Amino acid sequence: MIHIFLIVCSLFTFSAHAAVQDFCVADLKGPDTPAGYTCKPAATVTVDDFVSTGLRFAGNTSNIIKAAVTPAFSAQFPGVNGLGISIARLDVAAGGVVPMHTHPGGSELLLVTQGFITAGFVSSANTVYVKTLKKGDIMVFPQGLLHFQVNAGGVTAVAFASFSSATPGLQILDFALFANDLPSKLVEATTFLDDATVKKLKAVLGGTG
Amino acid sequence: MIHIFLIVCSLFTFSAHAAVQDFCVADLKGPDTPAGYTCKPAATVTVDDFVSTGLRFAGNTSNIIKAAVTPAFSAQFPGVNGLGISIARLDVAAGGVVPMHTHPGGSELLLVTQGFITAGFVSSANTVYVKTLKKGDIMVFPQGLLHFQVNAGGVTAVAFASFSSATPGLQILDFALFANDLPSKLVEATTFLDDATVKKLKAVLGGTG
Amino acid sequence: MIHIFLIVCSLFTFSAHAAVQDFCVADLKGPDTPAGYTCKPAATVTVDDFVSTGLRFAGNTSNIIKAAVTPAFSAQFPGVNGLGISIARLDVAAGGVVPMHTHPGGSELLLVTQGFITAGFVSSANTVYVKTLKKGDIMVFPQGLLHFQVNAGGVTAVAFASFSSATPGLQILDFALFANDLPSKLVEATTFLDDATVKKLKAVLGGTG
Amino acid sequence: MIHIFLIVCSLFTFSAHAAVQDFCVADLKGPDTPAGYTCKPAATVTVDDFVSTGLRFAGNTSNIIKAAVTPAFSAQFPGVNGLGISIARLDVAAGGVVPMHTHPGGSELLLVTQGFITAGFVSSANTVYVKTLKKGDIMVFPQGLLHFQVNAGGVTAVAFASFSSATPGLQILDFALFANDLPSKLVEATTFLDDATVKKLKAVLGGTG
Amino acid sequence: MIHIFLIVCSLFTFSAHAAVQDFCVADLKGPDTPAGYTCKPAATVTVDDFVSTGLRFAGNTSNIIKAAVTPAFSAQFPGVNGLGISIARLDVAAGGVVPMHTHPGGSELLLVTQGFITAGFVSSANTVYVKTLKKGDIMVFPQGLLHFQVNAGGVTAVAFASFSSATPGLQILDFALFANDLPSKLVEATTFLDDATVKKLKAVLGGTG
Amino acid sequence: MIHIFLIVCSLFTFSAHAAVQDFCVADLKGPDTPAGYTCKPAATVTVDDFVSTGLRFAGNTSNIIKAAVTPAFSAQFPGVNGLGISIARLDVAAGGVVPMHTHPGGSELLLVTQGFITAGFVSSANTVYVKTLKKGDIMVFPQGLLHFQVNAGGVTAVAFASFSSATPGLQILDFALFANDLPSKLVEATTFLDDATVKKLKAVLGGTG
Repeated sequence: MIHIFLIVCSLFTFSAHAAVQDFCVADLKGPDTPAGYTCKPAATVTVDDFVSTGLRFAGNTSNIIKAAVTPAFSAQFPGVNGLGISIARLDVAAGGVVPMHTHPGGSELLLVTQGFITAGFVSSANTVYVKTLKKGDIMVFPQGLLHFQVNAGGVTAVAFASFSSATPGLQILDFALFANDLPSKLVEATTFLDDATVKKLKAVLGGTG
Repeated sequence: MIHIFLIVCSLFTFSAHAAVQDFCVADLKGPDTPAGYTCKPAATVTVDDFVSTGLRFAGNTSNIIKAAVTPAFSAQFPGVNGLGISIARLDVAAGGVVPMHTHPGGSELLLVTQGFITAGFVSSANTVYVKTLKKGDIMVFPQGLLHFQVNAGGVTAVAFASFSSATPGLQILDFALFANDLPSKLVEATTFLDDATVKKLKAVLGGTG
Repeated sequence: MIHIFLIVCSLFTFSAHAAVQDFCVADLKGPDTPAGYTCKPAATVTVDDFVSTGLRFAGNTSNIIKAAVTPAFSAQFPGVNGLGISIARLDVAAGGVVPMHTHPGGSELLLVTQGFITAGFVSSANTVYVKTLKKGDIMVFPQGLLHFQVNAGGVTAVAFASFSSATPGLQILDFALFANDLPSKLVEATTFLDDATVKKLKAVLGGTG
Repeated sequence: MIHIFLIVCSLFTFSAHAAVQDFCVADLKGPDTPAGYTCKPAATVTVDDFVSTGLRFAGNTSNIIKAAVTPAFSAQFPGVNGLGISIARLDVAAGGVVPMHTHPGGSELLLVTQGFITAGFVSSANTVYVKTLKKGDIMVFPQGLLHFQVNAGGVTAVAFASFSSATPGLQILDFALFANDLPSKLVEATTFLDDATVKKLKAVLGGTG
Repeated sequence: MIHIFLIVCSLFTFSAHAAVQDFCVADLKGPDTPAGYTCKPAATVTVDDFVSTGLRFAGNTSNIIKAAVTPAFSAQFPGVNGLGISIARLDVAAGGVVPMHTHPGGSELLLVTQGFITAGFVSSANTVYVKTLKKGDIMVFPQGLLHFQVNAGGVTAVAFASFSSATPGLQILDFALFANDLPSKLVEATTFLDDATVKKLKAVLGGTG
Repeated sequence: MIHIFLIVCSLFTFSAHAAVQDFCVADLKGPDTPAGYTCKPAATVTVDDFVSTGLRFAGNTSNIIKAAVTPAFSAQFPGVNGLGISIARLDVAAGGVVPMHTHPGGSELLLVTQGFITAGFVSSANTVYVKTLKKGDIMVFPQGLLHFQVNAGGVTAVAFASFSSATPGLQILDFALFANDLPSKLVEATTFLDDATVKKLKAVLGGTG
């Protein structure tokens, strides 16, 4: 039995060392790096770092887009840090829209779990790929391309979007153009939109300049 | 208007060239490479390469594990080729089990969409992380580690597992040990299982040697 | 001397084998892969595969944007295939604009070599980073984010944009939205632009639907 | 001579800056990241960070597996941090065994330097690849797949395993299943092993539950 | 309008979270990691982190090589940290030379903006690829291979070298061999250069031993 | 029993699909790609693709360097293709030398298995790291940096070098400079070696020009 515990101990010690970087639960208080957050000490990691209940409930769709996006990226779900995957919940009420947007840092795989969603993306060659999806259907959106989802039925739709990165990012077109201080003159010059349109949308979305 | 079409044409041409490798839909008849399958010619790609309806319906759980796994990896869903993401549907009937297994090529993010599932994984340090999940809960399993899912309720559970690779692979422990021609002597020597146990499971799972 | 040639021969043979994948000049007739084109046989590679004179001369800026973009990506410059770098020349006449766009596949480093350019990008947090650059100034645009360049002087400006990918891609916002068959109804729903604006720009850029 | 020192100085300064990240010797007291440990200041790095004598001597094989594994991963050999390579020494006495295990984080290349070893792995397709190796033979085990090594002669065998990661990890099957608090009920349900077998191995390996 | 601001707020909050790692401006005072420096807090980042004017002016070529290299790598240009790209300015006076060197960490794409440069590299197969370039010409040098640039005209040449890494490194052959304390005996044994040559170059370049 | 075979079959089928890219044994007759060779059909793969006996025997050291390098890279050992690891055997007779060289594509981890070797490398900061190694000692050489090995005892030394790439490449300094048609004028201008030295070494190593 002594031998047994010898080997148990020695191998345990070894495994414990070797185990470094099976995972790297984000220490959100620590510094960020190009590869993700620094790691929480392994000794303080619990199963709750790898589990989230934050997507159980519908997001609030009482807003102009009648939709809500609830992310579980590194910042909300530290267990995915460094693992190259994350997820978000989409709730899209009847008439709702997830506006034209991109994820600069990863590809998206959409799974519809309720209702009907018309989703599409545009390639660098300006080709349009659009389809109406029902419960159980999946669609993939390659990294960095403009895409959108709109409710295609009379009822609230629910979908889950997985990403090939723990921090895919999200750039919503209208917010990028109209919800900040990018001067109207530059928006107009670089989008060919007229002054009235730009000013109107800036007013709606809280942009200035 | 001529100018307009000049720019339209010239920019289109440019974009068309630049667009190479927005995506690389798998040509399943072409050769495989370490980075994935070769690409289908862009001109032959349609939206149906990026959409799959194959996960709409429950898999057949009339089997000894009372569970079914339906993958949408590159081989079943060519649109994900090279995009670093894929998905699979899990149906686990009451009393069903997705046996102990690993994905050599990627991390897994599990989303429960129906019923209750007890899921867990073991780290290189031999620490166990196990939790019972309900509808809307997510859990992440770091790459290459042994993990499992078992039905934790009286009703069929459904879940979707996303992966950080288009070809995560799947190695089911019992199949690796008992469903092939790995000699019983070697199985016993490397697992400390006794001869009777190994022979019995080989008989059940169709192994030889 | 025999020894010398022994070693010369043997080491040459070795080096020749080992040399595989110093580089992988694109065989544009071969299949594409997620990692780039297949390689031209090493024996047929010459220095001209690694050199391009295609950026010597200004592109034609007689068009509505008064600008021209001349790429040297894998498709135009096969020597960069697999090397994670490429370049493009920008010519922007007085009053010219490189419209709002993204590169889904890589970051951009802009170098101004003539004239004045006001360049900017918007982050996922919708923060605007904009600056006017003169000859010798550089600016970096992180992967996948919307950015633009406009002539900021009375004379033609020239710049060179390097990319962290041999195939960074290019998605020009107006072309993605208005130069294809994406239905106006969907464009309007996902951008909050009004019908008149969408129809007008589709007419100008050759879009339908 | 002044010119000479001008150039020497200026180029030295430049090189010193440019040199950042030739290497990143692990600061084991610093935080870990998904890409490895933070770096020791370059000024404090010495040749001994890149050299290890820890594999000179045989590990202690007086244990139930009659084998010892001595790793030189980042945690034991800080010089490999971030370089994508590491190594371990295997000592396998007559009758000894390196039990069925996986490396979640990297592929392994085994080199036998003494004696005879029968080694094998099982693929995701459950195909077995097994061979007996002698001094000077090499065998590669693809990332994340179950594999093993057993002494195949009457004398102690020695081998060195190189890995494609500085932290490949190590998950020993029996330790993952039987040397922790994973409830027997779950082990049995997910492995099809009977209660007696599970309880017996838990007793031997110090498992509970 | 309340609804509008609801959505504005909620989406802003989301975007702000999601935005993590659009970019990672180097905190040069923070620790370095295998993937680059830790990130400056996003709140402190300004456009000037993404812009550099350091390459506006010619470097000092009054030195033995009649050339100057001015880098904009992470250490000089923190905005490129983690983005996989950087740049350097080359000034090569008449008769000037950028001596034989390598970049251990990245491929180089050279753009000539003034004068004439003869550039070349040698492959692992010892094949030479050399060409004389004029204004607007580009040449790519695959990662880690020996290459050089020499002025090929009567006037000062200027070029910009882009790299596929934010920290490509630079190893100048003569400095590696003759400007440090590598013992002459070892230099001679490993380069086949005679003692007089080694001692002479060590004297010129400040080497010892 | 029918159920059993149902599940066996169904899971086998699934595994077989999912298994794609556990490994990618090089099809040396197929095209090369930036990520490695295309894959041999899985059905034709045998254990002998993963095993090599080519390093069992000493290389021929009857040559000017009194040393031999025997590689097991993708081209010689197809099983490592795409796995990010490879190995080579070094035989260095008394007085023998592995001349100054680099591996453009990977880091090296050296293991001495017989005799004594003095090994060293030079960093981008021109710092020298040199040490004499004995049997069982290991030393790591970061990617792309100049390094060397010389016999440090009266007897033949043997070592095995592992690499973090299946195709690390090898650039031997003297061969790159003197064993090809790189014009002596350019060698002299870019290395500061005198004409006599260059001409002498070109004569010895078979160079021209």
